[in-house]
Amino acid sequence: MNEAAKTLDGWYVLHDFRKIDWNSWKTVSASEREQMLNEFEALVSKWEGTEKAGKGSHALYSIVGQKADIMIMLLRPTMEELNEIENAFNKSGLAAYMIPTYSYVSVVELSNYLAGDSDEDPYENPYVRSRLYPELPRWKHVCFYPMDKRREGNDNWYMLPMEERKNLMRSHGMIGRGYAGVVKQIISGSVGFDDWEWGVTLFSDDVLQFKKLVYEMRFDEVSARYGEFGSFYVGNILEKERIPAYFHI
Amino acid sequence: MNEAAKTLDGWYVLHDFRKIDWNSWKTVSASEREQMLNEFEALVSKWEGTEKAGKGSHALYSIVGQKADIMIMLLRPTMEELNEIENAFNKSGLAAYMIPTYSYVSVVELSNYLAGDSDEDPYENPYVRSRLYPELPRWKHVCFYPMDKRREGNDNWYMLPMEERKNLMRSHGMIGRGYAGVVKQIISGSVGFDDWEWGVTLFSDDVLQFKKLVYEMRFDEVSARYGEFGSFYVGNILEKERIPAYFHI
Amino acid sequence: MNEAAKTLDGWYVLHDFRKIDWNSWKTVSASEREQMLNEFEALVSKWEGTEKAGKGSHALYSIVGQKADIMIMLLRPTMEELNEIENAFNKSGLAAYMIPTYSYVSVVELSNYLAGDSDEDPYENPYVRSRLYPELPRWKHVCFYPMDKRREGNDNWYMLPMEERKNLMRSHGMIGRGYAGVVKQIISGSVGFDDWEWGVTLFSDDVLQFKKLVYEMRFDEVSARYGEFGSFYVGNILEKERIPAYFHI
Amino acid sequence: MNEAAKTLDGWYVLHDFRKIDWNSWKTVSASEREQMLNEFEALVSKWEGTEKAGKGSHALYSIVGQKADIMIMLLRPTMEELNEIENAFNKSGLAAYMIPTYSYVSVVELSNYLAGDSDEDPYENPYVRSRLYPELPRWKHVCFYPMDKRREGNDNWYMLPMEERKNLMRSHGMIGRGYAGVVKQIISGSVGFDDWEWGVTLFSDDVLQFKKLVYEMRFDEVSARYGEFGSFYVGNILEKERIPAYFHI
Amino acid sequence: MNEAAKTLDGWYVLHDFRKIDWNSWKTVSASEREQMLNEFEALVSKWEGTEKAGKGSHALYSIVGQKADIMIMLLRPTMEELNEIENAFNKSGLAAYMIPTYSYVSVVELSNYLAGDSDEDPYENPYVRSRLYPELPRWKHVCFYPMDKRREGNDNWYMLPMEERKNLMRSHGMIGRGYAGVVKQIISGSVGFDDWEWGVTLFSDDVLQFKKLVYEMRFDEVSARYGEFGSFYVGNILEKERIPAYFHI
Repeated sequence: MNEAAKTLDGWYVLHDFRKIDWNSWKTVSASEREQMLNEFEALVSKWEGTEKAGKGSHALYSIVGQKADIMIMLLRPTMEELNEIENAFNKSGLAAYMIPTYSYVSVVELSNYLAGDSDEDPYENPYVRSRLYPELPRWKHVCFYPMDKRREGNDNWYMLPMEERKNLMRSHGMIGRGYAGVVKQIISGSVGFDDWEWGVTLFSDDVLQFKKLVYEMRFDEVSARYGEFGSFYVGNILEKERIPAYFHI
Repeated sequence: MNEAAKTLDGWYVLHDFRKIDWNSWKTVSASEREQMLNEFEALVSKWEGTEKAGKGSHALYSIVGQKADIMIMLLRPTMEELNEIENAFNKSGLAAYMIPTYSYVSVVELSNYLAGDSDEDPYENPYVRSRLYPELPRWKHVCFYPMDKRREGNDNWYMLPMEERKNLMRSHGMIGRGYAGVVKQIISGSVGFDDWEWGVTLFSDDVLQFKKLVYEMRFDEVSARYGEFGSFYVGNILEKERIPAYFHI
Repeated sequence: MNEAAKTLDGWYVLHDFRKIDWNSWKTVSASEREQMLNEFEALVSKWEGTEKAGKGSHALYSIVGQKADIMIMLLRPTMEELNEIENAFNKSGLAAYMIPTYSYVSVVELSNYLAGDSDEDPYENPYVRSRLYPELPRWKHVCFYPMDKRREGNDNWYMLPMEERKNLMRSHGMIGRGYAGVVKQIISGSVGFDDWEWGVTLFSDDVLQFKKLVYEMRFDEVSARYGEFGSFYVGNILEKERIPAYFHI
Repeated sequence: MNEAAKTLDGWYVLHDFRKIDWNSWKTVSASEREQMLNEFEALVSKWEGTEKAGKGSHALYSIVGQKADIMIMLLRPTMEELNEIENAFNKSGLAAYMIPTYSYVSVVELSNYLAGDSDEDPYENPYVRSRLYPELPRWKHVCFYPMDKRREGNDNWYMLPMEERKNLMRSHGMIGRGYAGVVKQIISGSVGFDDWEWGVTLFSDDVLQFKKLVYEMRFDEVSARYGEFGSFYVGNILEKERIPAYFHI
Repeated sequence: MNEAAKTLDGWYVLHDFRKIDWNSWKTVSASEREQMLNEFEALVSKWEGTEKAGKGSHALYSIVGQKADIMIMLLRPTMEELNEIENAFNKSGLAAYMIPTYSYVSVVELSNYLAGDSDEDPYENPYVRSRLYPELPRWKHVCFYPMDKRREGNDNWYMLPMEERKNLMRSHGMIGRGYAGVVKQIISGSVGFDDWEWGVTLFSDDVLQFKKLVYEMRFDEVSARYGEFGSFYVGNILEKERIPAYFHI
């Protein structure tokens, strides 16, 4: 296989964005609302069980602005599990009041550009495993956006020699490293799965760091010449305990 | 006729994507739901009969993410038959709960680039026939996307000499061959039928192979310089037996 | 006037695409449905009268795929008549169950590129008249798409000298001529009327010929370098006699 | 101020496009319909009073095709008046049956390119005033489209020297002048007000002249290299007296 | 950190655009309408309290044209507060009659290009503070649009050396300064927060000044070569006292 196309792949990822249909939700009786929220919290508890068992991870964030109200991010070992969770949620009572607005299907990915030369099986390396099968941090803020590498005229990433791409990615990675401990970044590949080539999910306790990181990277040649970006979503963590208050009328 | 424009054409293809309107579906009584599912399974049985008779083929997949819930893929000898099936399905009970989200009209196509020099009628060649009139595999996963060849500035596929296109396609085909037995690929032409020039449908028992194949191809000049891609859909097989469970509330 | 911009213009054309709202249609009683279909067939009969009187033409096709169910194509001597028919149809009973999805406003056009040098008034020439005021063929299939001539960087059609455009169009026309008797083509101009510069309507008894013709043309410089294409619609003829069956539940 | 950016500005303009919701309109009783039409005609009469007083102008056209049924074009001395009329109309009975599909906000503009060198205050010049504060003609047809001047690579209008832009606009204006008396043209500027830089509204008694004019201009360098166009709307005049018939079921 | 990417950041900003659902609003009884308006005015009063306490600011404008009826602009010290206000408003009675049409999430930003060389902490400078934490002016008109710096071929802002960008921005800033006292401009950064890189909000008592300013800037190289613009919204101030009249049926 083409050396450039080698990646390490971990859990499958579904980002699911929904808007709450407040108008309909208001027409529901308080007891029915409570029942639906209980059903939803039971689902979340089940996800927590999966996470504790090391079989996946998830996150709930409240999105700022009209693009969505809630983002549910789910990581699982198979595409079938993602599909089952999605369908189970769609059949739940609360889903009838949460209008789908966007979703993204991908798989956690470590790129080949930063690979070392060791002979060991990377899938056995604990550090690699912790990145391919991550437990999502419960940090205060999330930022999600999909992206492509540009293929236009003289700015065609996929026509560059491997060595040049490697060098460009290295300097790009250096910027990310400057935010270590402040911004946690999960890259997931979506070539063949969804409309962009990658999804980027950032977590931070300081929302301003998303802007600083993405803006600083934009001056880096990899983004400046070769980055194409989709919609950006930014949000605040929605802890399980806050769900009733969030949905309270 | 322009040598470059010669193709071998087989069955007409309809990809039909729908979302389930779970909110309305829930309001239906269990007995009515059962009746509608029976009607739908009878339709699928009819399609199975056609397939056994070698007069067409079909596949049902559950799509991951919000773009669609179900993809029905249908192959038939005429455009009229596709239209009739589509209309019959639209009039069925279940269709009232399945909102159309995307469709694609095309015809199975073998390109001229890989043609041999023999004098025989290719439509009599059993291998060619098996590719033009394929029985769709029941593999676990599907990936569908439409694509164009680029016509922009210096990257204009249609202005390249036939010989150059042939060479480029040959190296492109080599990548596909590396996935033989792992990914089955059906190319269907849609120039004059739908908004992109081709539809690509991939089948595999390992969903990750879609990403590996498409990503590897992206570094190949045919895709890197000349490929334009539409939306990607990925899904899991929905066997007829699982339909009741899938729709169960 | 600029020589290049001269055209011969015939009847005004409305392409009107609609989807059937099957869900609502099913809730209508059989007798009301029959009444609405009778009203619609009376409209079509009126159009037939106009056609027999040589005052216009029309066609009804069933579109394959989700973009539309029905295409009504109408040709009339004035824009007012198109508007009246459109409004009359919109007020009819059936229209309440046919959701508009796309329309196109244009005028049948013969371009200046193929003009001869004779002194005669082309509007008196019977052949020219038969093309400007055509009776639409009742062929089995239709293909419609709108298009522009590109104006981008070095590929700017409108900056080419008249002589070069004439030569390019001549070779382009030769391809079309290769399909004489197999594909009938109606070009209508829409500069100043709708969002693209031309509409192309093709008729054939063999739907595959649309793909062959459009694909062959794509290798021709006029399309390869200068063609920009909108959505493609393909369909099967819907004869007046088949209307009740088509709408039957 | 930059010489190039100087303009003369007249009345503010709102183009308001709506589709009639015939399905709902049909459910209204004849007497209620009459009442709502009376209310609407009273609004139009009020607008006529404003026009007679020289404090604005308006036009009503029936649009051909599905983009809209009705275009209301309003000219007033202030943005506040446009907003008030819009809100008053939205609160009226008929508006409940007219679905907004597109609107455009601009101000009548005379460009600096054609300015003379006189010292007089152009706002005192009667000819200039008649163009900045026009009474819209009641001609049979209307054509509206928004446009930009291109800023792409080597085709960047805003990077051209003033003198070159002036020359290009002069030859462009010559084409328009060839249609004097046949097509009346109102240019309105929308930089800072709406999504394109200008709106163009054409009036003519011969709808074909729109196509001839716009097509002829397209070969002119200003359009060929520097013009970007939005959606085109074409329509037939809707005289106040014809309103009841237009809305009659 | 890359010098170019340094910014000073102030309050977080939410621009929230909504259309009024007049049809449904009309069905509400006068007393319920009054109650909902009281609830909304109470919300606005709360925002006024926050503003008086120097903990944020807000503005209400009535938008001209169909893109929206109302724009609510909110500035707060944290993303959480914006989210809370948004959710509180969504749960209010009036929100059920105000359909979201667009929103924008950003943070008030002062760019590095105009920074002085002093050693003082800019966040302690009263002038800087007044710009990062502004009280929005109650001027008659507002103009909002999002924008990007272009990254295309030879027109790639992010590949320019810092010095060149600084010079270009300086001349750009000079144009803005020419409108001092006439147009107040708030730039907010949205890299990592929303789909464009910046939001621009202009305030003026003379709506024509928006057009003059934006048009003049368009000839400046920063905009001409490097500016990409989203949708433009223009509106008139909606004072709290006018809310009842605005919503009165």
